[in-house]
Amino acid sequence: MSAQTTPPVPSLSGGTGQTSSATLALALDLLARPSVTPDDHGCQPLMIERLEAIGFHVERMTIGGIDNFWATRGQHGPVLAFAGHTDVVPSGPESEWDVPPFTPCVDAEGYLRGRGAADMKGSLAAMITAVERFVAAHPDHEGRLAFLITADEEGPAVHGTRAVVERLRERNDPLDYCIVGEPSSTSHLGDVVKNGRRGSLGGVLTVRGIQGHVAYPHLARNPIHQSLAALQALTETRWDEGNDFFPATSFQISNVHAGTGATNVVPGELEVTFNFRYSTEVTDEQLRERVAEILDAHGLDYRLTWTLNGEPFLTPDGKLLDATRAACEAVTGRCPALSTSGGTSDGRFIATLGAQVIELGPVNATIHQVNERILAADLDTLSRLYETILQRLYT
Amino acid sequence: MSAQTTPPVPSLSGGTGQTSSATLALALDLLARPSVTPDDHGCQPLMIERLEAIGFHVERMTIGGIDNFWATRGQHGPVLAFAGHTDVVPSGPESEWDVPPFTPCVDAEGYLRGRGAADMKGSLAAMITAVERFVAAHPDHEGRLAFLITADEEGPAVHGTRAVVERLRERNDPLDYCIVGEPSSTSHLGDVVKNGRRGSLGGVLTVRGIQGHVAYPHLARNPIHQSLAALQALTETRWDEGNDFFPATSFQISNVHAGTGATNVVPGELEVTFNFRYSTEVTDEQLRERVAEILDAHGLDYRLTWTLNGEPFLTPDGKLLDATRAACEAVTGRCPALSTSGGTSDGRFIATLGAQVIELGPVNATIHQVNERILAADLDTLSRLYETILQRLYT
Ligand SMILES: [Zn+2]
Ligand SMILES: [Zn+2]
Repeated sequence: MSAQTTPPVPSLSGGTGQTSSATLALALDLLARPSVTPDDHGCQPLMIERLEAIGFHVERMTIGGIDNFWATRGQHGPVLAFAGHTDVVPSGPESEWDVPPFTPCVDAEGYLRGRGAADMKGSLAAMITAVERFVAAHPDHEGRLAFLITADEEGPAVHGTRAVVERLRERNDPLDYCIVGEPSSTSHLGDVVKNGRRGSLGGVLTVRGIQGHVAYPHLARNPIHQSLAALQALTETRWDEGNDFFPATSFQISNVHAGTGATNVVPGELEVTFNFRYSTEVTDEQLRERVAEILDAHGLDYRLTWTLNGEPFLTPDGKLLDATRAACEAVTGRCPALSTSGGTSDGRFIATLGAQVIELGPVNATIHQVNERILAADLDTLSRLYETILQRLYT
Repeated sequence: MSAQTTPPVPSLSGGTGQTSSATLALALDLLARPSVTPDDHGCQPLMIERLEAIGFHVERMTIGGIDNFWATRGQHGPVLAFAGHTDVVPSGPESEWDVPPFTPCVDAEGYLRGRGAADMKGSLAAMITAVERFVAAHPDHEGRLAFLITADEEGPAVHGTRAVVERLRERNDPLDYCIVGEPSSTSHLGDVVKNGRRGSLGGVLTVRGIQGHVAYPHLARNPIHQSLAALQALTETRWDEGNDFFPATSFQISNVHAGTGATNVVPGELEVTFNFRYSTEVTDEQLRERVAEILDAHGLDYRLTWTLNGEPFLTPDGKLLDATRAACEAVTGRCPALSTSGGTSDGRFIATLGAQVIELGPVNATIHQVNERILAADLDTLSRLYETILQRLYT
């Protein structure tokens, strides 16, 4: 590690108690490992070592070549799991980075830089140190603590959290609360907590016509012409009104393709790819049915295939949200906004176990971009946020 | 030439006068030359030799590497030109042909087989023999006879008839009547005469949106969604009602493309390729204006490029159509139907000289296909049709 990366002592705003830079040190260790999906590259062993040292029982679950682990501490009472991923998206062109993406450092402005700083090795480090302090202060804490960590969240996500959740479900392992470390904050750490995510349902529609020559349109059936009214109806349909937590369900066409380039040929097929981001006011079944009704009403000859990328989930008011809000106010002085916006996360899998799931992590302004970074000082604040939630729930 | 290709004496139905098989013999000679566009492969020299032998003055016009010629006989009076092309489309897989495509023969059912039999070496042979007989009978005929022959009608057609017509225009060469040998007949020789063609106007429309993520549609502007109503308006617009000779103008979308395959990205652009086949009731200028009006009315941010493939032309009742109808009735016993349907032909260029233009040729059922063929007996009938038109106009 170069002189540049010698951890400075971060200044904490309004924090109380321990203010060591243990979180930054661990984050730097994790960020130095180029764990591009699906390669954990030694990140999980680092976490496991720290957790075993404070009494966690760790189960490694390597599934389909993907490293995951499930760690627990305590025998009785409700289970609170920290969830996250050690994998990161590729760095993109290294030449566009101000510092090498896997040589993390804290810059002159106090930013911790490196691929994964925000998404989500900073959160992993903060979880570990939060639990270390909590266990040190409460070795015989109420309830159970857990970690659900995967190395495939940014990739296909088939053998990651989804598979671990299936194992937990098979053996009836309970899960009551889950804090996912995804970077939920937008301007300031803790300004936004995600308490749900919209569902994602994809469709591929193939409309069949009859190929022909543009000079003889009566001998052809143009699938583009035929589909326009139906597609317009789909874009104009109000699928629901959303609710207090979700915006209205949205429908977007992402691809349309017909024709092979010849300008005098009426194509025989039109292919349309679309995606729903949907609220808890509708089910994917209802959306499928209503799309088919609209296509049928327009008399189309079509084939339609669906992919359910993720069902929506929502964590309503309850112990976890209460503790989270209280922790944010205590540590940051601000009340967080609740949001269900954005893409999908592994929270969609965990919620199927019946757990209350929230996402709380660093500012997400630079995720998946070159020069990914977060304020180094936010790491200890985030660690304190996690610790305070534990205190609220378990003491 | 094999025994198989020894020309039988065709039986003529209801014909009077000379019934030699000179037409079939010339057609076989032309068909044996694989003159795939743009290679004339010696077809034009064969025609030129015959024409010079009966007093034609021949100008070879090789333009942009394309062989063309313009031949005239006579000094005064109206000019009637026979027009056609020596080039043929590729044969396609030879293995699918019952006989090799460039080894012409007459089969047991009396069909002349070979690439170009219908489109249009049969017509070229019939033109030559018709003129030979006419000149022999009327060496001092009224008016002038001409041939406008190209080897690039099936290809780009830039340096073919279009270029020859430009030369004629530049030197103010008159052209009053033109018989194009395109295969106009549908069931029986002479059942359809084309007296015009629709115009062809192509457009490429690019609609600009704002690319984004399907999870954040409010930050994107989906060019597919935006365009649906405008495209529907274009497909539903009644551009004209056509007229006695033309069906209503038709609009067909041939290609639509948007999206790069990613299912979670709102594309930034939509590209639409479309084509008008239009009647003489509208001009290409009017169509361009009306399309722009519709796109503007829908508030689209777009770019639009046009290609005028051919203006429409129409030959109304007059001396040429009168002579053609009378010839058909005399030779075939049937009155031909007039039609302007189908694709474009070189008639569109010739008509710009102010000539009356008709298309009359063999049955087009097999053109551009494997096993292209016409009834061998139709060759002499077609030759007599051409000859009879000459007689009606010039004697
Ligand atoms: Zn993440
Ligand atoms: Zn042709």
